[in-house]
Amino acid sequence: MKQFDVVVVGGSAAGITAAITCRRHYPDKRVLLVRKEAQVLIPCGIPYTFGTVGGPENDLIPDAVLEKNNIELLVDEVVDMDCQERTVTTAGGETIGYQRLILATGSVPIMPPIPGLDKENIFAIKKEVSHLNRMCQAMDTASDLVIVGCGFIGVEIAEECRRRHRDVNIRIVEMLRHCLQLVYDEGFCVRAEEALRGQGVDLLLDEKVEAFLGNGKVSGVRLASGKEIAADMVIMGIGAAPNVALAKKGGLEIGPGRGIEVDRYMQTSDSSVFACGDCADKVSFFDGKPSGLKLASIATMEARIAGANLFGPRRVNMGVIGVYSTLLGETAFAAAGLTETLAREKGYRIVVGEAEAVNRHPGCMPGAEKMKVKLIFEAGSRMLLGGQVSGARSGGELINAVSACIHQRMTADDIATFQTGTHPALTASPIAYQLVNAAEMAIAASWEPSSRGGA
Amino acid sequence: MKQFDVVVVGGSAAGITAAITCRRHYPDKRVLLVRKEAQVLIPCGIPYTFGTVGGPENDLIPDAVLEKNNIELLVDEVVDMDCQERTVTTAGGETIGYQRLILATGSVPIMPPIPGLDKENIFAIKKEVSHLNRMCQAMDTASDLVIVGCGFIGVEIAEECRRRHRDVNIRIVEMLRHCLQLVYDEGFCVRAEEALRGQGVDLLLDEKVEAFLGNGKVSGVRLASGKEIAADMVIMGIGAAPNVALAKKGGLEIGPGRGIEVDRYMQTSDSSVFACGDCADKVSFFDGKPSGLKLASIATMEARIAGANLFGPRRVNMGVIGVYSTLLGETAFAAAGLTETLAREKGYRIVVGEAEAVNRHPGCMPGAEKMKVKLIFEAGSRMLLGGQVSGARSGGELINAVSACIHQRMTADDIATFQTGTHPALTASPIAYQLVNAAEMAIAASWEPSSRGGA
Repeated sequence: MKQFDVVVVGGSAAGITAAITCRRHYPDKRVLLVRKEAQVLIPCGIPYTFGTVGGPENDLIPDAVLEKNNIELLVDEVVDMDCQERTVTTAGGETIGYQRLILATGSVPIMPPIPGLDKENIFAIKKEVSHLNRMCQAMDTASDLVIVGCGFIGVEIAEECRRRHRDVNIRIVEMLRHCLQLVYDEGFCVRAEEALRGQGVDLLLDEKVEAFLGNGKVSGVRLASGKEIAADMVIMGIGAAPNVALAKKGGLEIGPGRGIEVDRYMQTSDSSVFACGDCADKVSFFDGKPSGLKLASIATMEARIAGANLFGPRRVNMGVIGVYSTLLGETAFAAAGLTETLAREKGYRIVVGEAEAVNRHPGCMPGAEKMKVKLIFEAGSRMLLGGQVSGARSGGELINAVSACIHQRMTADDIATFQTGTHPALTASPIAYQLVNAAEMAIAASWEPSSRGGA
Repeated sequence: MKQFDVVVVGGSAAGITAAITCRRHYPDKRVLLVRKEAQVLIPCGIPYTFGTVGGPENDLIPDAVLEKNNIELLVDEVVDMDCQERTVTTAGGETIGYQRLILATGSVPIMPPIPGLDKENIFAIKKEVSHLNRMCQAMDTASDLVIVGCGFIGVEIAEECRRRHRDVNIRIVEMLRHCLQLVYDEGFCVRAEEALRGQGVDLLLDEKVEAFLGNGKVSGVRLASGKEIAADMVIMGIGAAPNVALAKKGGLEIGPGRGIEVDRYMQTSDSSVFACGDCADKVSFFDGKPSGLKLASIATMEARIAGANLFGPRRVNMGVIGVYSTLLGETAFAAAGLTETLAREKGYRIVVGEAEAVNRHPGCMPGAEKMKVKLIFEAGSRMLLGGQVSGARSGGELINAVSACIHQRMTADDIATFQTGTHPALTASPIAYQLVNAAEMAIAASWEPSSRGGA
């Protein structure tokens, strides 16, 4: 029986980061990473394999990152675990002993019980190169593509299919009233919808799939409204559920969000076993209640906590903020923390500020594009709860300043007076800097009955 | 005699922002801004008036921002003030009464007593349209331009002169060993120097100007090393001193940094008078000692404090962090807080981490460029003291996340586990995200004797 100090199960963002973090914090430990895939896809890059990056082979995480960090690799599937004996067993018949185990088994696509879901040419998004190649092939001959779910995966895949295939009809069916509605407030959603429609993507919002039609191969989709739409290819993009099959075999407890239960150290119900990433249960940074968020950036954050805590607690997970970004057409959309809607649902009394300006100064500097920032504060303490950014691509980094402000529970006054760097060729002017002005507008608005301000 | 609730003297970044902030916080007050310039230049845009933006007329702050905020404007020079009577007097003969006065009188270029400084075609950078136009004309006929001082103004003007004028010889004389040495550590300085030399800018480092030569018009520069270089135009870019002439007439106290003395509320020695921007004395965020930093972004930060505190303290200035960015060639350079050198000078024991990665994932995504982050922590507490970024343009926003982390005195563990948003088209991957990994590398390095880590 092979014996390792640390065994990591899973080779995607969480598993790799946990192993690297373990290496950094415990340089002398022997670390093995076991994964079932021969090749590992960059998860956030998957939509781009259909278009921009030219195929799944160009979206791989190189194994060199493991070698460089002196992490041993076994390509095999872990099919069982024994917490008593501290061993895992693989499909290839190996039994491997561990001192500490990290489960980073990820998630599986949610496939709701819709009649006809088993028809040919209906695809989930699986993180497998061969599966994605089959999807690429199907896409090349499709004339009517229907995407179910208008979250990030849905909108990004729609754009990339358009990039791949000028002539295909692309429709997205979404049961909520707006695309990306869980992450952005209405104004931002509407702008995202315009960006999608501008690329010839049809949006069927406030609509639910009732059945997939066709003999053997899918030929159409019947919606709850009675409408029927043509479809010779369907992509399901309605989310993923924690993959807890192995954890259950090991007798680990499952949390209220159906992920592996973990404490703030990312320790499971067995103190030698840690879990991180999509397979682990999560709580919200704001109220500590269960959160269903699943993001690679959350997975790596949790992995950095799990990996550091393996032989003694060093880091604490205070729950997920949720920081997102995407690019639709030429417009970046980014968000962190609670939307106005979510904040109200959690019972907050809020005050909101918005500011828009070009990301250069003067505005005739090359590359000038508008960028808008919206900030949402708790009205009494003026503590930052969330932020949304749309416009120039640098919004993808600005949202990380917003995230830092949320993480530190900064107030509107803190943000209005914190020190920003600005430059004609890189940002808005210091007078017009959007993050600072959105905070100022929220303060101004907090003295008015409407509780809303804009610059 | 005219009477206003609030009079602001100075119409650049600090003055405008102070007036707007006052309007937001005190909607009912009558606010007058008095400035001597008919047109106000965007200060950070001045170097770009020589090239990219095509002249000073394209680098103006529109007066609409004052009108929109219901701020009255008087174009006239305030030549005297009386704190007893609470009045200011203008060159045009007006006497204006105030309840609260904000001095935002800016700075004047430092002109050291170098022999020959009064020769024709030796220019300081003044924030005046006509002056900049004269400089543009001189530049068009110059064949040997010498810039004195290799700080931000020097390097940006050098690039823009090159853009304007392919054939001119451009030389920068700097007394320190590296360009931008006060803001970046050596590795970043060397990269900036390469970017400048790549555009045909000669750098004479570790050199001091001893005299300007020529009859009437400048024809050369003699350096302390004995070298003489040709020069038919000279631009002085060695910094600016607080403009305190008016404050002295009012009997206000002057601080150890030779600016108008202010407390944490930006209140001067007269409780009805506030000062902000380049004219106000500053202390460092880190040790509270005098700081000579002068930046538009500091000016606006101080203005937001002064404007909010006019009728009762609401905000506190904890001192300047110093957040900078610029673009040299196609490379952005940004920095916040202390460099390694400055931190050591202040007596800190430090630990440093660096991480470099492309700003896209996978690396074949369009627009992929390298971006490097260096973070400097106090070794014991691992509190962040400073950060430097070079590479892609989005570094101009990333440095503001660094600034927020410094402002909140976040530790390396806080940064290593704080939640970032990442996206294939906008940022590095969550595994490789530079800010987080630089913090991780500093932690790893803090266990090693060398106290230095890189990813």
